Amino acid sequence: MIAIVKHGAKKEQIDNLIDWFKKRGLETHLSVGEFTTIIGLIGDTSRVDIELIEGLDIIESVKRISEPFKSANRKFHPDDTVVDIGGIKIGGGNFQLIAGPCSVESEEQILEVARSVKASGATILRGGAFKPRTSPYAFQGLQSEGIDLMVKAGKTAGMPIVTEIMNTNHLPLFEEVDAIQVGARNMQNYELLKELGETGKPILLKRGLANTITELLMSAEYILAGGNKNVILCERGIRTFETYTRNTLDLAAVPVLKELTHLPVIVDPSHATGSAKLVKPMALAAAAAGADGIMIEVHTDRAGPACAPPPPRTPEQFDDVADRVRRIREVIS
Amino acid sequence: MIAIVKHGAKKEQIDNLIDWFKKRGLETHLSVGEFTTIIGLIGDTSRVDIELIEGLDIIESVKRISEPFKSANRKFHPDDTVVDIGGIKIGGGNFQLIAGPCSVESEEQILEVARSVKASGATILRGGAFKPRTSPYAFQGLQSEGIDLMVKAGKTAGMPIVTEIMNTNHLPLFEEVDAIQVGARNMQNYELLKELGETGKPILLKRGLANTITELLMSAEYILAGGNKNVILCERGIRTFETYTRNTLDLAAVPVLKELTHLPVIVDPSHATGSAKLVKPMALAAAAAGADGIMIEVHTDRAGPACAPPPPRTPEQFDDVADRVRRIREVIS
Amino acid sequence: MIAIVKHGAKKEQIDNLIDWFKKRGLETHLSVGEFTTIIGLIGDTSRVDIELIEGLDIIESVKRISEPFKSANRKFHPDDTVVDIGGIKIGGGNFQLIAGPCSVESEEQILEVARSVKASGATILRGGAFKPRTSPYAFQGLQSEGIDLMVKAGKTAGMPIVTEIMNTNHLPLFEEVDAIQVGARNMQNYELLKELGETGKPILLKRGLANTITELLMSAEYILAGGNKNVILCERGIRTFETYTRNTLDLAAVPVLKELTHLPVIVDPSHATGSAKLVKPMALAAAAAGADGIMIEVHTDRAGPACAPPPPRTPEQFDDVADRVRRIREVIS
Amino acid sequence: MIAIVKHGAKKEQIDNLIDWFKKRGLETHLSVGEFTTIIGLIGDTSRVDIELIEGLDIIESVKRISEPFKSANRKFHPDDTVVDIGGIKIGGGNFQLIAGPCSVESEEQILEVARSVKASGATILRGGAFKPRTSPYAFQGLQSEGIDLMVKAGKTAGMPIVTEIMNTNHLPLFEEVDAIQVGARNMQNYELLKELGETGKPILLKRGLANTITELLMSAEYILAGGNKNVILCERGIRTFETYTRNTLDLAAVPVLKELTHLPVIVDPSHATGSAKLVKPMALAAAAAGADGIMIEVHTDRAGPACAPPPPRTPEQFDDVADRVRRIREVIS
Repeated sequence: MIAIVKHGAKKEQIDNLIDWFKKRGLETHLSVGEFTTIIGLIGDTSRVDIELIEGLDIIESVKRISEPFKSANRKFHPDDTVVDIGGIKIGGGNFQLIAGPCSVESEEQILEVARSVKASGATILRGGAFKPRTSPYAFQGLQSEGIDLMVKAGKTAGMPIVTEIMNTNHLPLFEEVDAIQVGARNMQNYELLKELGETGKPILLKRGLANTITELLMSAEYILAGGNKNVILCERGIRTFETYTRNTLDLAAVPVLKELTHLPVIVDPSHATGSAKLVKPMALAAAAAGADGIMIEVHTDRAGPACAPPPPRTPEQFDDVADRVRRIREVIS
Repeated sequence: MIAIVKHGAKKEQIDNLIDWFKKRGLETHLSVGEFTTIIGLIGDTSRVDIELIEGLDIIESVKRISEPFKSANRKFHPDDTVVDIGGIKIGGGNFQLIAGPCSVESEEQILEVARSVKASGATILRGGAFKPRTSPYAFQGLQSEGIDLMVKAGKTAGMPIVTEIMNTNHLPLFEEVDAIQVGARNMQNYELLKELGETGKPILLKRGLANTITELLMSAEYILAGGNKNVILCERGIRTFETYTRNTLDLAAVPVLKELTHLPVIVDPSHATGSAKLVKPMALAAAAAGADGIMIEVHTDRAGPACAPPPPRTPEQFDDVADRVRRIREVIS
Repeated sequence: MIAIVKHGAKKEQIDNLIDWFKKRGLETHLSVGEFTTIIGLIGDTSRVDIELIEGLDIIESVKRISEPFKSANRKFHPDDTVVDIGGIKIGGGNFQLIAGPCSVESEEQILEVARSVKASGATILRGGAFKPRTSPYAFQGLQSEGIDLMVKAGKTAGMPIVTEIMNTNHLPLFEEVDAIQVGARNMQNYELLKELGETGKPILLKRGLANTITELLMSAEYILAGGNKNVILCERGIRTFETYTRNTLDLAAVPVLKELTHLPVIVDPSHATGSAKLVKPMALAAAAAGADGIMIEVHTDRAGPACAPPPPRTPEQFDDVADRVRRIREVIS
Repeated sequence: MIAIVKHGAKKEQIDNLIDWFKKRGLETHLSVGEFTTIIGLIGDTSRVDIELIEGLDIIESVKRISEPFKSANRKFHPDDTVVDIGGIKIGGGNFQLIAGPCSVESEEQILEVARSVKASGATILRGGAFKPRTSPYAFQGLQSEGIDLMVKAGKTAGMPIVTEIMNTNHLPLFEEVDAIQVGARNMQNYELLKELGETGKPILLKRGLANTITELLMSAEYILAGGNKNVILCERGIRTFETYTRNTLDLAAVPVLKELTHLPVIVDPSHATGSAKLVKPMALAAAAAGADGIMIEVHTDRAGPACAPPPPRTPEQFDDVADRVRRIREVIS
């Protein structure tokens, strides 16, 4: 880490700051230039709060030179992590299609969707039981009943299941869940991440709406630091000024993450775009960008939608996407 | 709410959608124009998921016409809400200065800061015991010990206290805390909001880094819907492409919120800017914009910082800010 | 267009506004609801400034119902536009690879790159003669000499050329240029767009750093309105908070644009990502998303870079990208 | 400038890069750490394209240590620049209110507004003759006739005038204009900036919608580098995800700019917010933040708006804003 000292800082102020760094166990290296003085910090800077130093009057800016994430860092773990979700491997060359409805609504619905997506080549079933909703008046999911239905549908179809958690108190309900999803809004709910780090369950961690790639990795680090090595990262769109799509899918995050970390990286085009017609082209683009998996919402409710967004609504549509994704995987291999 | 139908949608599709709305208890009003067909929805549209409808193939866009927040809406509650924090009123013309360190570090520290900010005119003491940190390796706060020290400092100085909660399981520790803060990263931790809605405590709700004004109000709505009417909103900067400041302080949010809602609105210039020198001008600007209070970090640690950001570090500096803020309040009154 | 009137607006104010609309030749339709009053505007609303109406005290918001772009709108021109760049067709199923260096630096350099990219399958040569640079002290391009070298290289290699214009006064220099590029920073330089609308040249219009899809189409509309129908749109990344990549490539813009407009849409992964390693995965993703072409920077200067970004530096690397792009085109067809 | 080399870069690659830097006249200083290698660059790095270096395979990131702007930099010019606009000084403690309509529409209109704002304390008259409009079908301003009317109104009211330029070819029309405005959309129209640098006219340079503070200063640098020292910077809102206001007014940019540069800094709350009601609180906040001036749109058209946004429409309203701004200036002095 280097701290760039402001033009005009007094020697006494700089000396005080260096003393303060030394008390925190850091070695310092002072470099005085014509217009700029730089303090290099050597040692375990992952414990130093970069914002703290940046806030000081005499500091112009602080720049990390090594990444603040360790367990997630490919530099120290060059081999791909392969996460096993109920017998289905993801990462390290293993690509999976995760599909299912936004919300579990009824036994009939989830069983039909599970059967249908399995037939089209999906290998993991997704479906929400606890739903994070902007409005307290909106449908909040079937909750524990929804989890039971997911477990039943997964067993019936012979597919492992993934579903979202919103509260550490609900953990006992997730015993038969194969992979636990942390939604975008909870990406920095550190208390939740810490508790998930103490389970052995695969965790599907979604990127927050306005979180950087580094912050996503730091949230993964919370889980890894607790001893749980089974983390899958998910790009699902970031918030920008563009309003045509619900969010802006940042597909470059896929190759960036694949370089920075050994963890598997998947993409959710359904939530990112919020539009039925965009799921197919964005799923194909995600595959072309090198994702280890794609998570797509599939609905069989032909009468109308029960949860957003409803793309590839029929098994035929999903089938087509799945087939082309497989062929794109061949092109990039 | 109005749903604008895509050019080219078939009559049968539109009829199906109208049926589906009707099943959800909504009255519909169809208006067919030369290039556009609009479905007006009348009834309790707060239960309709706008993203769901937007995701449909035949829908071009959906626009809410009435705000989705009710309890927080000034239209239905024209009078300002006044929140009482341990005897100190905020809102409805009552302006308060909230001050204290970022983190509680020791009894000596928090007692000294409390004494000092009280003398300068602060009326509420702030200080973090549970700290949300990007890195799992960074200092996470003194936690329950920190709460005890805050309570002691508040009593000694004769000031009510506010401190952040990160986990519903910690609620019992907050019994003697006068106001509970929900940090930016937890603004959409709905499980936490729901539980805080069941307490009677004043809640200081910070705007998330990438959350809209409407979403902030919807998160307040979660607390209000639970029966807790004591919500204070806090603008603390949003994330943009600008890197000179840590975040971009959105001061226009203050008059916008004052128009939309009856809840008090305060501003935190310290976290928004992340820079010592910017706290004073931004505090004065916040007062001029009509904020009901300002929350400033004050440190007395002259040897160095213990938490970011350290601005108005001395009592004299804070005194100067407090005095000018008071005079600006007179100008705008 | 509909204008939603604020709760509490007086009848007289609404009547005044309706009169004002009528004077501007618009028919109005008033709909008074329990909480909301809506004024529907019928007629040529493309001449109404939406921001003007939104700024009025009694207006809550204004929503366009029909798109403000006409000539670019697929609704009125369902067939794909095919643009002919010096005999090479783009759009309507015709896919092209545009390649070349960022800046023209010397005759030797541009001739070598042209030869090399042609051999790998590029069909159009790109290269900057006038360079928009953030700093007035940076290299501003070879300017008119650079145009001459581009023309010569294009003729030698048998490829049409595209190069950027920054000033309407330079138009005479572009006589032998096959397609004129408008850079991101000039996307809303309306005076430039108007003049280009009066030429018959193909215009490659890049999306501005913080411009919406609608604004890109409105800028295209400036050129089309002038009588020049040969516009190609280019997605090249938008500015967000993410700092790992130079910009965030918005690939969903490709299928969105393909639905909204009949104009060809290409992608520039080099400038969007600013990183050598990301060009290949993003080029493949752009092809999978349905782009009509991809524009890639190619350098043959093995000793070092002369302009950013240097990806697929060798003919072999570009060859590999070109080959896989072709195969992805087959998968999505 | 420092270039951080990627982990795993080969010695030969690093040596090549160092050679390449040396050929460009830069001294280099290599520092090899356990996990990181840093190349320090000494010399005139303002000529080095930072994006170029960042795009190299072996480079992790590049960080400027000294600002790339020189003539605008307060480090080298500690004293405030005072710009004289037709006898009215701005900067260096001189605060000015600039007021007038968005567009000049008629002689009667501009004369009435000029008289009215002068009476309320405005010292400079603003009004658009050339209007940058998103739509080619919208009113584009009275153009040269508008300039004539502005000149006449300024002379009649005894006020200097400022109006926007969009095309270098129009420069001859601006001879009697006291200050020339460069709008947000043209902030990086470098050809325009270069030509304005060759005039002696005061230039009011507006920040682009998605431009950083550094980029604004670099655009000022284009004008300064041409020999024109009379540049006034204007914050007018940046584009974010928030949709309640037209843009997000970044008031922290005011004290940041005041620290970085000696140039005067003003604020335009009318265009930033796009809402009549927000102009007053944001004007007061801008004054409190330390702006050297405020630019407000004032309309006297009581029947309806002719251009957006119409705030402080009556002389009485503007009078109130002007009075409070003066009193806030006293508080912060």
